[in-house]
Formats: sequence, structure tokens, C-alpha cells
Amino acid sequence: MDNLTDVSGLIEGSKVKGVNVYNMEGEKIGAIDDLMIEKQRGAIAYAVMSFGGFLGMGNDYYPLPWSMLKYDTAKGGYLVNITRAQLEGAPAYARDVQDWRDRNFETRVNDYYGSGPFWGV
Amino acid sequence: MDNLTDVSGLIEGSKVKGVNVYNMEGEKIGAIDDLMIEKQRGAIAYAVMSFGGFLGMGNDYYPLPWSMLKYDTAKGGYLVNITRAQLEGAPAYARDVQDWRDRNFETRVNDYYGSGPFWGV
Repeated sequence: MDNLTDVSGLIEGSKVKGVNVYNMEGEKIGAIDDLMIEKQRGAIAYAVMSFGGFLGMGNDYYPLPWSMLKYDTAKGGYLVNITRAQLEGAPAYARDVQDWRDRNFETRVNDYYGSGPFWGV
Repeated sequence: MDNLTDVSGLIEGSKVKGVNVYNMEGEKIGAIDDLMIEKQRGAIAYAVMSFGGFLGMGNDYYPLPWSMLKYDTAKGGYLVNITRAQLEGAPAYARDVQDWRDRNFETRVNDYYGSGPFWGV
């Protein structure tokens, strides 16, 4: 994970998997499993966070709008302003189940987290 | 590779590896090996294209500014406006050799391809 603390500010996409995600209290709430990239614009739309059973919620995958994640150099991971209660009610899916081709799902994710300044832009 | 032709316009970052890259004449010039992501902004900065010996140039890795790549739905891959002669002179590195912490390398890449409207924004 040396690349996470390097000075260039770049990280290989292939190394994002497994990077920890923390809440604002510094507690680990999960780890990044994958990124969802907009093919046309080339922007990262969502980080898919997995729990790996950490919260006892099974192996579910929670897409988080990428703008919610802030990289913390000291922690070597991402900070996200979300509570456990919010996470428990958030849109999620089980491995190999979710079909992102279902636009409704993406809409649910966006609606759930909103797009206001609270979540960053 | 179903996800490359889906309707949502999203692709998992883990599935970008291996997607073909074509020049404007429709010839395959390589395949994407990895993405370089700006940790702080969350933007994709470069696509690292590998040749896999296709052009007889060995297994070199060529970082291309991400803005140069345009996704082509019909081809199921990325188009890039670059000639073979340009590629042959482009900054590249061998596997496990390049250190992106060297800012000079990134500057070389940016300088080589420029940042004008020709390459997209």
C-alpha cells in the first residue's frame, strides 16, 4: 500500500480495492471493493464499499457517491460523513446480484444520499 | 465484457483492464492495463496502455492522459487520436520499474501529449 502514501497523489485503480473507509469518528466502516466509472466521461461515479461482515450485515456492497469520499493521507484511507444508521438503510446488493443496468438502482442511490453540499460536490 | 455494452454507461474499475484501445483508423494499438487515479480529486488522470508485444515494442506501458480516450460503444473499446510514430516516441516504462512518485515522469507525459483542444479536455 506504499502507493497510498506517496507524494504524487496518484494511485493505480487496481490498488484501490481493499482501501479502508472510515467515518468521521475515525472508525473503519468498510473497505472499497470496486469503483464504478462513467465510460463516456471517464469520471468515477461511485465507490462500492464492502463490509466483509465487519458490521454483521453480511457481505453486502454499498455504492457510495464518489464525491462523498475524501482521501485522508494520515489514515491512508477514505473518510465519509455517514452514520451507521444511515448505512444500514442505504441501497446495497449482494455479490453478483446487482445489475447496474437497472437505472432505478442508481436513482435510488443518488436519492438516498442526495447531492447537496452536505455530501460534497 | 457485457458491462462494456450495457445501457447504464457505468463500468466497474476492475473490468477496465484488458479493454482494447484503437486509433482513429480503427486499428487496435493496445489494451488498458490500469488506471491512474488522483486520490484527492477522485478523477482519472491516466490510462496506462500496454502493448503486450503487439507492436514488437516489448511489454511496455504507456500512460495516456485520460482525456485522450473516447469510449466507442460500437467498438466496445476506447478510441485515441494518436499515430504509431507518436506512440513510439511517447514516455513509457517497463513493468514494476516506473515510479510515479517521480514528478518528472508525469510532467514528461503531460508535455508530450500537451493539453490543448486537440487532445480533448
